[in-house]
Amino acid sequence: MDNITIAVDAMGGDFGPSVTVPAALQVLKNHKALHLILVGDQAVLKKELSINNSINEPRYTIQHASQCVEMDESPSQALRSKKDSSMRVAINLVKASKAQACVSAGNTGALMATAHFVLKSIPGIDRPAIVSAFPTVSGSKIMRMLDLGANVDSSAENLYQFAVMGSVLASAVDNITNPKVYLLNIGEEVIKGNEQVKETAKLLSNSKMINYAGYIEGDQIYAGEADIVICDGFVGNVALKSSEGVAILIRKMLRDSYNRNFLTRIVGLLSKPVLKPVIKRIDPDRYNGATFLGLQGIVIKSHGGAGVKAYVHALEEAIMQIEKNIPQRIGAEVEKLLKLSKIDDPRVS
Amino acid sequence: MDNITIAVDAMGGDFGPSVTVPAALQVLKNHKALHLILVGDQAVLKKELSINNSINEPRYTIQHASQCVEMDESPSQALRSKKDSSMRVAINLVKASKAQACVSAGNTGALMATAHFVLKSIPGIDRPAIVSAFPTVSGSKIMRMLDLGANVDSSAENLYQFAVMGSVLASAVDNITNPKVYLLNIGEEVIKGNEQVKETAKLLSNSKMINYAGYIEGDQIYAGEADIVICDGFVGNVALKSSEGVAILIRKMLRDSYNRNFLTRIVGLLSKPVLKPVIKRIDPDRYNGATFLGLQGIVIKSHGGAGVKAYVHALEEAIMQIEKNIPQRIGAEVEKLLKLSKIDDPRVS
Repeated sequence: MDNITIAVDAMGGDFGPSVTVPAALQVLKNHKALHLILVGDQAVLKKELSINNSINEPRYTIQHASQCVEMDESPSQALRSKKDSSMRVAINLVKASKAQACVSAGNTGALMATAHFVLKSIPGIDRPAIVSAFPTVSGSKIMRMLDLGANVDSSAENLYQFAVMGSVLASAVDNITNPKVYLLNIGEEVIKGNEQVKETAKLLSNSKMINYAGYIEGDQIYAGEADIVICDGFVGNVALKSSEGVAILIRKMLRDSYNRNFLTRIVGLLSKPVLKPVIKRIDPDRYNGATFLGLQGIVIKSHGGAGVKAYVHALEEAIMQIEKNIPQRIGAEVEKLLKLSKIDDPRVS
Repeated sequence: MDNITIAVDAMGGDFGPSVTVPAALQVLKNHKALHLILVGDQAVLKKELSINNSINEPRYTIQHASQCVEMDESPSQALRSKKDSSMRVAINLVKASKAQACVSAGNTGALMATAHFVLKSIPGIDRPAIVSAFPTVSGSKIMRMLDLGANVDSSAENLYQFAVMGSVLASAVDNITNPKVYLLNIGEEVIKGNEQVKETAKLLSNSKMINYAGYIEGDQIYAGEADIVICDGFVGNVALKSSEGVAILIRKMLRDSYNRNFLTRIVGLLSKPVLKPVIKRIDPDRYNGATFLGLQGIVIKSHGGAGVKAYVHALEEAIMQIEKNIPQRIGAEVEKLLKLSKIDDPRVS
């Protein structure tokens, strides 16, 4: 890879520098052409670096920032009063082309609001979306779903744009030709879909740019058929979180069951190597690093509670997206779309 | 229990009488004061009863119906042209007070439309909702969520009514004093909730009739805190189905992992008795029998693909709701609410 630079909001997340610094050092080891700008309180960062015996590693620089965005701060508050926060300064570095991506485990709302304000969205994209990867039953195949909570009450037009962005991501990052795009809907029930979904289906069916494969129900999203699943941010967030809830429920039940008595504990020990690959495949750490798609710059959101391993994944996601030129490719697709819309795009028919 | 009668749509579901008849006979064995009316094609039903050696059981009657509603038939089509369907006749029996409940595994949309048309909703309830029980991490404690897909684009007022109905169900059937009602929302993301949720939260916060406990995110619905979770039918259906999807995903991964080689298969055999109670606790059969809440009569919807064991659960749910007088109790609560609304109900302030 060519020389690339990532700005790290080193103060962000539940654990701040004690996670971001070791993860940064780890990723520097893995990628020899990588440079990192660690943004945050200089004294705190230096201390953390010296704990990790890496005070003299030449491939990072420290960029001092005097403020921190709190995890429960309102986005507007952060935008207004935290102009020297580690988050804001890291995003500014992307805007100033001093970094090609920013990674933060900070407050999602503040990060989205700040990134949108500083970097602006790609012309033709009305609202950026949050996208993430999910495991499926088909071995190593992943599925990407958006939006996961950046927007609520999305219009059909917004959802259509999510489909364009998702398709670009799946073909560029996942190397899928003509990625299959599904629209999340409810099935056999009384009224098939709400107004938003029906409208979006019309746009997608008529599109020449998207390989629209139809409706998908919640129980099929992990079945390995879909490359991209499109939905409103409220719905996507509920799907994501309730899936997490079930995974936690099942894990708890399994643990309780193996802990029932002496014999079951023995079986539990024997089962460990069998269960390990399963736990690894659904390990949320592996899927850490949601992307804010549709901005003029790469912004990766790590889970607030991410540990070092998970944060490394978020940094790796940023590297991949830099290498694949994601914002530029989305920009090019949207430009095509805007040209099309003057001729035969369904949205103007 | 007193003498009770249930009308069974014996032709409904993917397997029709081959499931409904054995399940009906099973439940008759369990409940000595129960009478069942098996509705459907007389010849087919008699044949199925003779296969089960129960042609002379005195506690059922057969009510002939010449038509069947297909699983993929549109609700309006079924309503218009299937006036002698097993589904319609079974619901008519409830309307005519010849049965106290109807159970069907047929087409959900058609069942809801027909039940709503024939039985009407309880005065004060604008839209009936689908409610079902879910397992939680807290041992045997269940959670009930509504709406699961009867309504999309629900208003705040609709959601408020779901909260009233859910509270009645939880206190009557689950014997919970002051059941805790949560509103499904998304969390830390950019905008907290959509308009629908914000409006509903206002109504619930001001209510004197509902023990409103606040917002809940998808990952917390199975955590055992909530007795009732309220949401729009689109969102609820997505939560339900994507939860099912994850459960299937994890089960498939576990099976693959135990089938990897000879040794893992041995461990799999040893694990069987440990995994069994877990599989039992999340077994969808146990939770079969969704209720159409808010109608002037009890209508229980069994899963279309239910087997005998699952269908027995749906019939048991009907018996429980008859014994607990659910529609009458909801009616009484709603009447209180309507009286209140003239004085100090938040909805008119």
